Amino acid sequence: MSIDDLKAKVAREFGTPAIVVDLDVVERNIARVQGLCDAAGVANRPHIKTHKSPVIASMQRDAGARGITCQKIGEAEIMAEAGHDDILIAYNILGEEKIGRLGRLLSRTKMTVAADNPTVVAGLPEAARIAGRNLGVVVECDTGRRRAGVETVAEAVALAKDIASRPGLSFAGFMLYPPENAVNETQAFLDAAMAGVRDLGLDPEIVSSGGTPNLLNLGRIKGVTEHRAGTSVFNDRMMLAAGFAQLQDCALTVYATVVSRAGAERGILDSGSKTLTSDTGGLEGHGLILEHPQAKIARFAEEHGFLDLSGCNDRPNVGDIVRVIPNHVCVVVNMVDRLVTVRGNEIVGELPVAARGRLT
Amino acid sequence: MSIDDLKAKVAREFGTPAIVVDLDVVERNIARVQGLCDAAGVANRPHIKTHKSPVIASMQRDAGARGITCQKIGEAEIMAEAGHDDILIAYNILGEEKIGRLGRLLSRTKMTVAADNPTVVAGLPEAARIAGRNLGVVVECDTGRRRAGVETVAEAVALAKDIASRPGLSFAGFMLYPPENAVNETQAFLDAAMAGVRDLGLDPEIVSSGGTPNLLNLGRIKGVTEHRAGTSVFNDRMMLAAGFAQLQDCALTVYATVVSRAGAERGILDSGSKTLTSDTGGLEGHGLILEHPQAKIARFAEEHGFLDLSGCNDRPNVGDIVRVIPNHVCVVVNMVDRLVTVRGNEIVGELPVAARGRLT
Repeated sequence: MSIDDLKAKVAREFGTPAIVVDLDVVERNIARVQGLCDAAGVANRPHIKTHKSPVIASMQRDAGARGITCQKIGEAEIMAEAGHDDILIAYNILGEEKIGRLGRLLSRTKMTVAADNPTVVAGLPEAARIAGRNLGVVVECDTGRRRAGVETVAEAVALAKDIASRPGLSFAGFMLYPPENAVNETQAFLDAAMAGVRDLGLDPEIVSSGGTPNLLNLGRIKGVTEHRAGTSVFNDRMMLAAGFAQLQDCALTVYATVVSRAGAERGILDSGSKTLTSDTGGLEGHGLILEHPQAKIARFAEEHGFLDLSGCNDRPNVGDIVRVIPNHVCVVVNMVDRLVTVRGNEIVGELPVAARGRLT
Repeated sequence: MSIDDLKAKVAREFGTPAIVVDLDVVERNIARVQGLCDAAGVANRPHIKTHKSPVIASMQRDAGARGITCQKIGEAEIMAEAGHDDILIAYNILGEEKIGRLGRLLSRTKMTVAADNPTVVAGLPEAARIAGRNLGVVVECDTGRRRAGVETVAEAVALAKDIASRPGLSFAGFMLYPPENAVNETQAFLDAAMAGVRDLGLDPEIVSSGGTPNLLNLGRIKGVTEHRAGTSVFNDRMMLAAGFAQLQDCALTVYATVVSRAGAERGILDSGSKTLTSDTGGLEGHGLILEHPQAKIARFAEEHGFLDLSGCNDRPNVGDIVRVIPNHVCVVVNMVDRLVTVRGNEIVGELPVAARGRLT
């Protein structure tokens, strides 16, 4: 089947917009990431936030991943129900409702969670008590990204000590999300934090680094034991911009129909912020149209993608089906209950996004 | 129960983030919109894209709405299954899969659709043929917003003539989404288009205008027969900025927990772009925190809302639960399968977002 035939068939069977994943590309991406981890001697713990699918998580495990990373308890619950074990929740877990769920998860699955402050640490022993089993806790450290994480080595060491002193908790190590250009700063932070906790007699088992672009930095930060990357399983326009991926590495495209050519230099896709989302990833425009790379997805309504075609010689017609690589793939997957799966130009079926919309 | 008790109870029962809707406020908002329409002698055809709930659509019908507006066939299918009749799909419907579904809908429900180009019009007779019943088609006109719609009166009249000439189609009138500050331009366009189609012997039944802020302009464009507004049922930070709503008119808030105070001037909510979405609505910051109005939700990760607290005297602590009015409420509703419903400070229950995620 030609790509034009595939586009027509997807539109006929599923309608557009359709979120389409090429499983051949997914397998190549999984193998590439595992290869990068293996070459660096770092364990692979992929972040499932990108695919939200126990099936794809199993493909990652089968390729050699040590465990998986989740961002929310609800994601971990879906993964554990599907049989996945050894789960890191890279997030501060807080509040009675979540601690109860964490305890129930821990009773059946090896769990590690992150913490970056004493309030979160103080709540965690209850989860261990419910489970009747120790809970591993890594200290999240901020080495320049200014997201979550303690900002100083002193805080990191103090929090490690706090964790180790609590009933039912084990200090498991450190979690980093290093800026790609801050290898030296991150190394200095990590070395000092490691020395600090060793002085306390603590022995960190895990040093987790993160991020898809950092897969190209693996091995440069000494002491890292495992890596968590999400986007690399599908890739997106941000990863193209970061130089991590090429077009042929982008496993997910949104098939969209041109529903209007409102003016000579304007067009409208049937995919707006309800499909492609308004996450820009810091890029200009809201996606790359493979058939019309010079077209700009300039702005969105919920169900409209407004095209600026002024830079295009070859402009699409109403009714044309195009494929869009989204800026940020993780949030696009979260917009649908099912992905359409293909291999090359053949339809395979549908894959449930089992952990979609797990906010808590 | 106090608001603090309510926040604690919602967090305990549902976890955070929770998307909470006050039905007392919803009822007031519905009555207000119906009152504005009644006072202007314009029929009310609320857009269900905001709530995506047949239950709330019924509340709008019970208050006097003539019919409902949907943006996608999948939304109309959910509404029709729940018994709603007289549905306008304010969208170009295109392609074999959608035309088939439109035909099946039309066989059971009075349907009107919009079109802004001949390619779309050419596909619609097949839906009427499937249904064995006429399909009403309104011509979408652009009077300055530069979204969908024909840009000239000549195109509008030509498209009306095209529609009227097709088997199974009835030219039903015009659909406008006037910029709030373009009443005169819109009136001139509409008058000329009306004269043009009357010269052809066509008699438009419907002239639909749209948008929540335009509810305050009702009656200023002569000839409008009905209005479709969505956001007004819940309101949001955009409607506060537009002067349409006050704080007490905002029916939906996102209950979020402060999970980190990463630095003295920084904090993190457990609600990021997967909950509040990156739709800015043209506003600075990503939402209004009722408890800390000077805090700025500066940027997002999927599960993190990064707070800039530099303008705050009273800064939140880790574990605090806060309520956020989102910039754009329609897209937030689409992120969850269920809304938590309250009346004042009492929990009522949960309401399914039945038409969530209907991309097609």
